[in-house]
Amino acid sequence: MYDGAVQDLIDELGRLPGIGPKSAQRIAFHILSSEEADVQALIDAMSAVKAKVRFCEICGNVTEQEICRICSDTRRVDSVICVVEEAKDIVAVERTREYRGKYHVLGGSINPIEGVGPEDLRIRQLFTRLADGKVQEIIIATDPNIEGEATASYLIRSLAPMGVNVSRLASGLPVGGDLEYADEITLSRAFEGRTMVHRSSGGTAE
Amino acid sequence: MYDGAVQDLIDELGRLPGIGPKSAQRIAFHILSSEEADVQALIDAMSAVKAKVRFCEICGNVTEQEICRICSDTRRVDSVICVVEEAKDIVAVERTREYRGKYHVLGGSINPIEGVGPEDLRIRQLFTRLADGKVQEIIIATDPNIEGEATASYLIRSLAPMGVNVSRLASGLPVGGDLEYADEITLSRAFEGRTMVHRSSGGTAE
Repeated sequence: MYDGAVQDLIDELGRLPGIGPKSAQRIAFHILSSEEADVQALIDAMSAVKAKVRFCEICGNVTEQEICRICSDTRRVDSVICVVEEAKDIVAVERTREYRGKYHVLGGSINPIEGVGPEDLRIRQLFTRLADGKVQEIIIATDPNIEGEATASYLIRSLAPMGVNVSRLASGLPVGGDLEYADEITLSRAFEGRTMVHRSSGGTAE
Repeated sequence: MYDGAVQDLIDELGRLPGIGPKSAQRIAFHILSSEEADVQALIDAMSAVKAKVRFCEICGNVTEQEICRICSDTRRVDSVICVVEEAKDIVAVERTREYRGKYHVLGGSINPIEGVGPEDLRIRQLFTRLADGKVQEIIIATDPNIEGEATASYLIRSLAPMGVNVSRLASGLPVGGDLEYADEITLSRAFEGRTMVHRSSGGTAE
């Protein structure tokens, strides 16, 4: 429809999540008429993210160091791990200002249709973190949708023999949605009302 | 909220039109977990647009040459010029496959609140194109909103003494909208039903 470079940019922008053809066109023309320096700032920000940002070796959160700021925060409780699907879910939970434990990012959820199985998630790394016996509770905070439920069920089954308490966020989260879009109050309530789904026989929590 | 580079990218993406904070976050995480080559393709597309694309010296359309492909298309009628606000409006009109004349891109619309006056638009360049007397009709196809109406009124007044027929697209376009979002049928009807608002005493069209 457009001459080469403009159409190329519209096509590339259209590959981004949530950007339809009309948005891609609007953004392309915005870039076209923007100051050179503003476009360069966007390009630099993209390059910097790819160059600098990596994933925390412990929890899988995004970080510019080896270990993220939450894992390296000594004021936070080591005995509780909140398991989330994505790093952006950590930001949502942090906004509640009520959770003082650590996190574990799975990097997705079990999704047979898209060919994502448990072995594609950071579940092995979670089990490694339980090895020293310090962790007393795992809070499962996967998205309240089908894939999140399947992932939670799998984790509950797998964690049962591990001698650790396992809880889930209270229902109250809107079903079918994404955890990252929940407001602070809903998420806070879900934390408060979390239900114990497996109590370790040797558990010391509570 | 996030560590340096990720937040920087979210901020930069949030400056793009139609991208709110949630979309910016979603896109930033998408970029973070994308293949290096895919991100580079997007960066290259942005750079290419800024490096290669310029505006047609005749009509103001986007092009990678001095003269755009419509202005240099000898099969198109020279005697009619369709005046639009933005280059993307040309694509909308071209989709109707009914218009075979040339275009003129104003580069915006008169908007006193944002300090855009007639002198900020490519109106002088439009008058230059009338100098050789070949143009017989100007079709005003500004957006059917307040700024577009103001721009159309100004053009009609200014063009009155120029010895050229001036028409406007038929109303039928949804008022308050953007021309670029009109569907092909609505736009085709608007072309067919355009109303003559000034007939040149020496006009030879029709």
